[in-house]
Amino acid sequence: MNVATILASKGRAVTTARSDTALIDVSSKLAAKKIGCIVIIGDQGRIDGIMSERDVIRAIAEGGPSALQQQVSRFMTSSVQTCHEGATLDELMEIMTQGRFRHLPVVDDTGALVGIISIGDVVKHHVAEVEMEVSAMRGYLATG
Amino acid sequence: MNVATILASKGRAVTTARSDTALIDVSSKLAAKKIGCIVIIGDQGRIDGIMSERDVIRAIAEGGPSALQQQVSRFMTSSVQTCHEGATLDELMEIMTQGRFRHLPVVDDTGALVGIISIGDVVKHHVAEVEMEVSAMRGYLATG
Repeated sequence: MNVATILASKGRAVTTARSDTALIDVSSKLAAKKIGCIVIIGDQGRIDGIMSERDVIRAIAEGGPSALQQQVSRFMTSSVQTCHEGATLDELMEIMTQGRFRHLPVVDDTGALVGIISIGDVVKHHVAEVEMEVSAMRGYLATG
Repeated sequence: MNVATILASKGRAVTTARSDTALIDVSSKLAAKKIGCIVIIGDQGRIDGIMSERDVIRAIAEGGPSALQQQVSRFMTSSVQTCHEGATLDELMEIMTQGRFRHLPVVDDTGALVGIISIGDVVKHHVAEVEMEVSAMRGYLATG
């Protein structure tokens, strides 16, 4: 099971915004879609950054309520760790643990954004994998 | 490996607040401690709710910047799923996946709060467990 398996199940849609979007509008988008982050996209679809729920909270804590009227470019995480479709669940878990990331945008060989994986997706598919293994073992024991 | 193992490694401190705290103060606490949620505590240490980063974002999306001046009781999640120290990593992953939770407060038999587990903690300890197994297998193969 790898990133391609997860994307085949959850889909490849990624919610994006431009870096001049106001923080309040990004927050509304996060809430409406019940997602944890938005990928910030520049010209030619280049990934400029990622704006997570945590980044919004930090902006409010630093700037107070008026920070919500400012542009996302001031608060986004600009150094974005990405992954490829071939990465395994174990590799994703390692990357997320080491970097304390909860989201990894998926890119193809040209660097184009083709999906996004959350830590919730990883755990959900790991649980499914374990359940399949248990079920296979039960079948083996029943017929053995 | 279970909840007790994780708490032994990360500690049992839980950041809490009362339900009449202003949302802006909860946000500052979340940012200062770099945590994803705060447990809302009532009289006799009873768990009244949980206020997560996601709940803050939803409050802003619904009420605009002025929501930050309001009390946390208006926006917190009141129905809180908890776990006990004996729960295994696999059980935690199942509960978190089914309920889409990223945090589970840990309670003892009296219902008192004794710790908190995040989805990041679960994945981190799962990675450590897999690495120990691989290392044990390598040792076995080397001496076999």
